[in-house]
Amino acid sequence: MRLGLDIGGTKTAAAILHDDGSLATLHTAPSGHGPGEVVAVAAMLAQAALREVSANRLAKDGQLEAMPAYAGACMPGLVDPASGQVRHAVNLGVSSMDLRAGLGAALGMEVNIENDVKAAALGADQLMRARRRTPESPVAGAEHRDARYGASGEGTSEHRTLAYLNIGTGLAAAVVRDGAVLRGRDGIIGEIGHFPVAGGALCKCGQFGCLETIASGSALDRLWDVPGGRGHDPFAAGLAGDSVAAHAAQVLCHGIALSLQLLVLTTGAEQIVLGGGLCALGDSLKIGIRSELARDAAASDFVASLGLADRFELLSSEVPVAALGAALLPSFDRL
Amino acid sequence: MRLGLDIGGTKTAAAILHDDGSLATLHTAPSGHGPGEVVAVAAMLAQAALREVSANRLAKDGQLEAMPAYAGACMPGLVDPASGQVRHAVNLGVSSMDLRAGLGAALGMEVNIENDVKAAALGADQLMRARRRTPESPVAGAEHRDARYGASGEGTSEHRTLAYLNIGTGLAAAVVRDGAVLRGRDGIIGEIGHFPVAGGALCKCGQFGCLETIASGSALDRLWDVPGGRGHDPFAAGLAGDSVAAHAAQVLCHGIALSLQLLVLTTGAEQIVLGGGLCALGDSLKIGIRSELARDAAASDFVASLGLADRFELLSSEVPVAALGAALLPSFDRL
Repeated sequence: MRLGLDIGGTKTAAAILHDDGSLATLHTAPSGHGPGEVVAVAAMLAQAALREVSANRLAKDGQLEAMPAYAGACMPGLVDPASGQVRHAVNLGVSSMDLRAGLGAALGMEVNIENDVKAAALGADQLMRARRRTPESPVAGAEHRDARYGASGEGTSEHRTLAYLNIGTGLAAAVVRDGAVLRGRDGIIGEIGHFPVAGGALCKCGQFGCLETIASGSALDRLWDVPGGRGHDPFAAGLAGDSVAAHAAQVLCHGIALSLQLLVLTTGAEQIVLGGGLCALGDSLKIGIRSELARDAAASDFVASLGLADRFELLSSEVPVAALGAALLPSFDRL
Repeated sequence: MRLGLDIGGTKTAAAILHDDGSLATLHTAPSGHGPGEVVAVAAMLAQAALREVSANRLAKDGQLEAMPAYAGACMPGLVDPASGQVRHAVNLGVSSMDLRAGLGAALGMEVNIENDVKAAALGADQLMRARRRTPESPVAGAEHRDARYGASGEGTSEHRTLAYLNIGTGLAAAVVRDGAVLRGRDGIIGEIGHFPVAGGALCKCGQFGCLETIASGSALDRLWDVPGGRGHDPFAAGLAGDSVAAHAAQVLCHGIALSLQLLVLTTGAEQIVLGGGLCALGDSLKIGIRSELARDAAASDFVASLGLADRFELLSSEVPVAALGAALLPSFDRL
């Protein structure tokens, strides 16, 4: 079995996966604040999850699975898998901490760490692989060759690129190529939320017009100042006659459409999985994005040729994709 | 030895490389127009180059090098290495042709093909590798491990990503990872000229604001309508008091700075090599780009952290980088 911890801005989740990749258990609680609490909450959840699966170990197909020998953990901020350090996890009250050492000591096992969006991308890649598996070989790792790639103009290459776009309070992406997360120096690959485009606003990063200022929860808050705060649906409000909400929803979808185009032009991603809090908007969001993509494709044969509408899909906000990805993190030695 | 052909919008070049990667000879002529002429000119130059090196084969270190057994060729447009087809090479009067078969028949040898910007990226990567080689091992392939990567936060990974940005009539990039060009379906990876940003104009692709409408030769032509056409220096004219030229030069540099940021955020490229016709502007262009990058970095710690000014360099327009890259194209079977 494998253990994955997702330390999010508001809640922390501990997931244990069976050897076949299916979820054995999931424990969640509000995240701690500050390095000490962050580790304490994560360790408490991990131990509860470990106790539960240990007690029920024979439940899966009558096989005695080995208990997790190490853990993976992810967190927002600048995460360095090599040093174990996390910096700038502002929402968690962490300016700097050694997450790997702290969690490793609390759990008594080796811990591998990664940035939360990068871990979620690994999780999304795993979910998409599982979907492509043939019924005859349901075991992880026994995936069949995806015949599409030989016929796609990629020649005999079997490289496969998936992008994950996280639309939460902020906007960030991550890229998985042939099953491995691409990082770049300081994990910069995928930080497209801070690329400036037309129609944006002043960003807290100092630039003007960052994609994050149109395609994120914070953008929505700025564009549609609704009483009662986050969690309202701008699509529903727009349909009910709130023109400010309708405009905010359209700007949001336009920004996401631009993000999809950006990711395809630079990474060639065949599949882009959207996750993060705003995916709770569900089909309204999906239809809104498709509508923006259709408008762009009608104006430009070039955009039409990219087939963006066929490349993206929304992840249900119920799927603990970051915890799943954290459970699959490679040990640093194998990076 | 290796043979590389660069069929450009205005001229065609045939380069033969010694086994150590150095240039044995370079023949150039104005490109043909239409599929028949395109192949005839390229084949004529290739044969002249082959005759020359054949006659002088003993000249290099007294060693008898083998004559090229196959050729590589590159061309603008949509190039499919797998099928050998080229489409939409508008400036060459080619809507569709089988370049691999046509050139293969004319030369009597196997020909591998690629898009010109992707081939140039391979060539640029080779030049940068050659520069890193230690004096003790000047042979191609005997490159030493670049110690920077172990210390860069990439962990123990030795992945190396180079981006090539071609600033000619249009704007396009290509990405080389660990020595291989990344393609994506239809070779889409790197087509950042058609990503819309703020400050752009209506693009011939149908979108509004494409990067190509601010960072390219055609953008310069639109922004600075100088009598006598292309080839004038907007930096020099700006210094001499032409405020329209000064503005055009600044817009150009701003667009290139944005392109660098885009490439780093999405590919993590440690090195970005600029090539193409506008690089003839030389140091003025380099200084102009650095000035834009410095302004962006002063406004944003995030941009400053990317260290963009340290990642880019201009290629001399004298270097036949696309022909060099074409000579290094892998055979399709090894793609």
